This record gives sequence, C-alpha cells and structure tokens, in this order.
Amino acid sequence: MAVIPVELGGRSYEVRVGSGLLDDLPAQCGKLLRKERVPIVTDANVAEHWRETVESALLGAGHQPRWLVLDPGEATKSWRGLEGLVDWLLAEGVERGDQILALGGGVIGDLAGFAAAILKRGCGFIQLPTTLLAQVDSSVGGKTAINTGAGKNLVGAFHQPSLVLADLGTLATLPAREMRAGYAEVIKYGVLGDADFFAWCERNGARVLAGDRGSRDYAVTESVRTKARIVAEDERETTGARALLNLGHTFGHALEAETGFSDRLLHGEAVALGTVLAARYSARRGYLADGDAERVTAAIDAAGLPSEIAALDLAADGRALAAHMLHDKKMDAGTLPFVLLGAIGQAFLDRQVALDDVAEFLDEELQAH
Amino acid sequence: MAVIPVELGGRSYEVRVGSGLLDDLPAQCGKLLRKERVPIVTDANVAEHWRETVESALLGAGHQPRWLVLDPGEATKSWRGLEGLVDWLLAEGVERGDQILALGGGVIGDLAGFAAAILKRGCGFIQLPTTLLAQVDSSVGGKTAINTGAGKNLVGAFHQPSLVLADLGTLATLPAREMRAGYAEVIKYGVLGDADFFAWCERNGARVLAGDRGSRDYAVTESVRTKARIVAEDERETTGARALLNLGHTFGHALEAETGFSDRLLHGEAVALGTVLAARYSARRGYLADGDAERVTAAIDAAGLPSEIAALDLAADGRALAAHMLHDKKMDAGTLPFVLLGAIGQAFLDRQVALDDVAEFLDEELQAH
Repeated sequence: MAVIPVELGGRSYEVRVGSGLLDDLPAQCGKLLRKERVPIVTDANVAEHWRETVESALLGAGHQPRWLVLDPGEATKSWRGLEGLVDWLLAEGVERGDQILALGGGVIGDLAGFAAAILKRGCGFIQLPTTLLAQVDSSVGGKTAINTGAGKNLVGAFHQPSLVLADLGTLATLPAREMRAGYAEVIKYGVLGDADFFAWCERNGARVLAGDRGSRDYAVTESVRTKARIVAEDERETTGARALLNLGHTFGHALEAETGFSDRLLHGEAVALGTVLAARYSARRGYLADGDAERVTAAIDAAGLPSEIAALDLAADGRALAAHMLHDKKMDAGTLPFVLLGAIGQAFLDRQVALDDVAEFLDEELQAH
Repeated sequence: MAVIPVELGGRSYEVRVGSGLLDDLPAQCGKLLRKERVPIVTDANVAEHWRETVESALLGAGHQPRWLVLDPGEATKSWRGLEGLVDWLLAEGVERGDQILALGGGVIGDLAGFAAAILKRGCGFIQLPTTLLAQVDSSVGGKTAINTGAGKNLVGAFHQPSLVLADLGTLATLPAREMRAGYAEVIKYGVLGDADFFAWCERNGARVLAGDRGSRDYAVTESVRTKARIVAEDERETTGARALLNLGHTFGHALEAETGFSDRLLHGEAVALGTVLAARYSARRGYLADGDAERVTAAIDAAGLPSEIAALDLAADGRALAAHMLHDKKMDAGTLPFVLLGAIGQAFLDRQVALDDVAEFLDEELQAH
C-alpha cells in the first residue's frame, strides 16, 4: 500500500493506494468512524459489486452501515440529487464531526463531497473511489460540485476529504471503456508535468489497460502523487499552479458540451482528445515541437482513446465549439486561461489566447483527414 | 464613519458603520466593483425604501445595476430560493472574481452569501445590512445558510464577505418591533463579554430604540467590534470562542421551533428571552449571582422584549422544549454545548449540561407568575 499525504495544514489528509482496502475499511478509517452508524452513499452499479464487501467489513467491526443507493449517471449530480442526499443525511442524524462515506466514481464523490461541504456548514467525508478516473483525479483535491441547467460543475465547493482509499481491486469490475477514459487523466499528468512518467506511459500503457497489477499500482500512485503536490501548492486554484491540471479540459469541455455530455463522449475521452488538441494548438503557436505533439497523439491513440476531432462527426464548426468555452467557470473578465505546452512535461498557463484563433484552429482540425 | 477590521488573513475585510454609506456605494466599494454590471439581491420591502438610492448611486458611477427582488420572509431562504438565485447569477454571467451585493436583512444576507459561497465554487459578496439584527450580527462573520424541512440554517457555508457597509440611515425605515428584536443581540454582546457595555445598554437602551443617532452609532459599532474580535479568534466555531455568541440561542431556538418560526416570536425576541433563561439557569446552577440574572432580565424587559416564558402561553412542557434542542447543529455525539454565565460579561461554554435538568428548569419557568 502506498500512502500519499496531501499537505494542506489543518485540512491535510492521506490518499492510500493498494489492494483490499475496502475489506479492511474499519481499520483503515480508524477513529474517523466514531459512531456505530456509518452513512454510505453509492450508486446501483457500484452497490452490485461492492456493497457486500463494505457491509461485512463494517458489520465485522461492530458498525451499522446505513446505505443510500442512487441512480448511476450524471443526472444524479443535480439540485434534486443534492437535496435528497442532504435530507437523508439530516434524517440519519449526521453531525459536524461525522464522516460520510462516498463509494463510487466521480458523480458519487462530487455529490457526497458537496453535501458534506454544506451539511451544517461542513462535516467530514471519506472518498472510496471505484473508477480509475476517480482514483487518479476527482477523489483527490477537494473539488466538489453539482450540475445545473447552465452547465456542469457550476455549483460546488472546495471541501477536502478526511481520507481517500483507492482500492485497486475495484478496477477489476470497471468496463474497459471507462478504464480507458480514466487512463486519459493518467497520461495527462505525464504530459503536463513529468516527461519521464509520460515516457513510462508510452511503454506501459497497454499493460495498465490489460490489468497488470504492478503497472496499475504505479500509474495510480504516480498520478495521485502529482495531483497531491499541485493541490498542496494551490488548493483553491488561485495561483495558476492548479490550473495546469486543466490541460485538455477546455477543449474537452467544448466537445462534451457539443455532444450533450452524453455517452457519445465520456469525460475522460474528451480530456484525451482535448489534450491532443492542446498539444497541436501549442505546436501551431510555435511553443511545442511538432514531434512532441505527435508523441502525445500517438500515446492517446495507442490507448484506444479518441485523438481525431474529425472522427467525432460533429455538426458544429470551430466558432460554435469555441463559443462553449465562454461558459467556462474559469472565464475571468472576458479572458479564458488556456493550458498550453512548452514541451512534454512542461505545461504553462496562457491568459492571452484569442478565441477567434482557437476557432480557426478547430476548423482546420474538423476538416483534417 | 467607524471602520472595524475583521482579521482573517487572506479572508480579512472591513465592516464600515456610518450614515449615507448607500449613497456613497461605488466609492465605498472601490475596485471590488470591477465590471459595469453589478448584481444586487434584495427583497420587496427593502427595495421599496432603498432601491432608488442604490440605483442612482451606481448609475452615477457608470455602473449598470441588475436587480433580483425576492419575497420578504424566511420562506425565501429555501432550496428553491437558492436555486432560483444561483440560476439568475449564472444567467447574469457572474464570475469568480465578481461581487454580489446583498441589500437587506438576515434572510437576504444568508441566502446571497450562501449562493456566493457555492457559485463556481466561490465568488465574492458585499453585505449591505438594512436591519439592526443584520448590522450587529448576521452580516459579520461569514455564516451563510438556508432552511430545510428538518430545520433552520441546517445547510450552509462559512463564507466571508468582501466588505460590510452598515448604513445607519436604513434603520430609520425599520419597524419598531424589528428594531427591538435586533437590539436583543446588542444587549447579548454586553452580557456575554463586556460588563461595561452592558451597563451602557442599561443607561442608553431607550435612546437607541428611540432613534438617537449617537447612541445607535455607538451600539452598532461596539457590537460589531465584539463580534469581529470573536470571529477573528475562531472563524469556524472550532475552539469554543465563537460558540459564546450563541448565548441565549439554544433556549431561543427551542422557543422559535415551538412557535413554528413565525411572527409570534421573532428571532431577536427569542434570543432576548433565551438570554434571560440562560442567565436564570446559570443562577440556578450556582454560577451567577441572582442579582445579575435580575439585571439581565430588567434590561431585556426595559427594551420591550419578552422576558417571561410563561407569557408566551405555550402548549409544550419543559421536556418538549428541550427535545427541540436535540436537533441543534452543534449537537455532538449526544451532548449539546450550552453558553452559561459566570458573571455579567463572563460567558462560558458548558458541555456537561443535562437536558433533563434543563427540562425541569423550563417547567418551573413555564409555571412562574
């Protein structure tokens, strides 16, 4: 088991990565579970695979698990979903010093984390991420949110978990497409800040996806280590350091918006393609060597992730795609910071990108091939 | 104009107390208003008296005021109210670096502050409190919340404003009953932490209520000074220092719950009576001299505020009233911290109070007179 500290003063916590952590849940949580009753939020898909494991681990330690099993999917991350969860937590008598367990992927973690942020002005929560995407990204760093009619994650809070237990065993039940989508965020960490790790991904990506234990362990641990370091440096995304984690996300967000945040393009797939576009746009602007943009493209492509926007068969043109970016949370007084690349492993924030130029670039990409 | 700093590191801000601050709004806000558009949330009662003043001040400085006028009353502080406000702010294009202006009493300040806390994971807001209660209490310290079916203020956030402008002129349009209710919180500051200020209240309470400018100015300024000091010491109510501000609130909350949070007993009236009960209970436990409990009662009574629970004509007995306290946000693993008095100006937190004993005390109070 790897233990990665997230150093945030009074809000510090550990991310533990390993196998069998859910079987060992009570011991892992220790004194965080101070009462007999333990509230657990999950979704029906995850419950099917992991409810029994968590249930018997808690019962074995004298706890009384209390379950709220929600519908799987983004629609649960809504005002209604939040209100229903908060009402349930209040009815369960959850207090400020208690912990809510979030067992699932990004939807469950974001929703339960946000509920914990606002219940009685803040109680604790423990992330038990069961997807690769949640293990390497959304469960670490305290970003919580729901979606509204105006867009995704537009309402939320920075609220750090008390503990994150990334049980690698849960990845065994993950559909292959979701595994690949999560792997896009793993590659992203190499591209944005660690050329050696990117090279490792080039060599070992196939092993990670095929289920090789040691490779998965290393991929998750290194990803969490990078994220923990950046979050510790810039918890609330104010200095620009944390913004680098959005590599591929601005382009990706436009593609998700255009495809209606549907199964046509999963978030991780959008990030994969967005990372390719960020690399190519960086090359077009003269920041990145063409060969490096090609390496990024090849690594994404080799993982079975989308690397060509033309293949999406979108009705929109570049201007329409760029228009989606105007609704980004990070828009500030008419400008949108873009994460670009100076080299593989060297991302930087450009606050001067002209959306017209981006639109033109996207038009070329849409017509390519 | 008095300027009282609230020292909270990177979240520090000023509370300014004086006359004519709304007329001078753009200059007071300075660079906080960085865009032409300025979103303002208020209620219909406040709008009737102060919309024109704020509108012309903003227009005069080249701003474009954008108004959301809500229904007056606690019912607005709901999930629906929050969702409606957030949707409006998103439609107005409010960004993380922007400020939302909250013009009104506690309902508007709590709701707009909470919306600011969660909009895009946090944007700015400026408190423009127009009631005595909001000026001396709710606008300072960053507690924001909405009510749910399970109770008042059970969902919210600690989110500090960027600035508080307490314009004493707004008190001129406040109904006398609301003025008295707000004055209960003023007396509270003396009782909990400043015997000299309590003595000042005994001598000058009538002048404050009658509208004497200098007395009002002093009462508000001193109250804010006390609150600012305590909030700076214990922003998130973790050390016990801030909990002292809840003097009278645990008893008061039970009375509000029993009267259905209705006009039968305003929040400030409940706090007034709750403060009397806290003093008498402290005397009963032998902590406070009987004469001091009588002084507290007399000061509350002289202000035209309720000081006898028997006069409320409640159907509930002591046990039923104490049961309401079990739902307090501050309940922790079966105990509820109570603020008691060792002397006037010397409140302390007692975590060992037995609710049975409180119920018995309340039964005696209910039968008195």
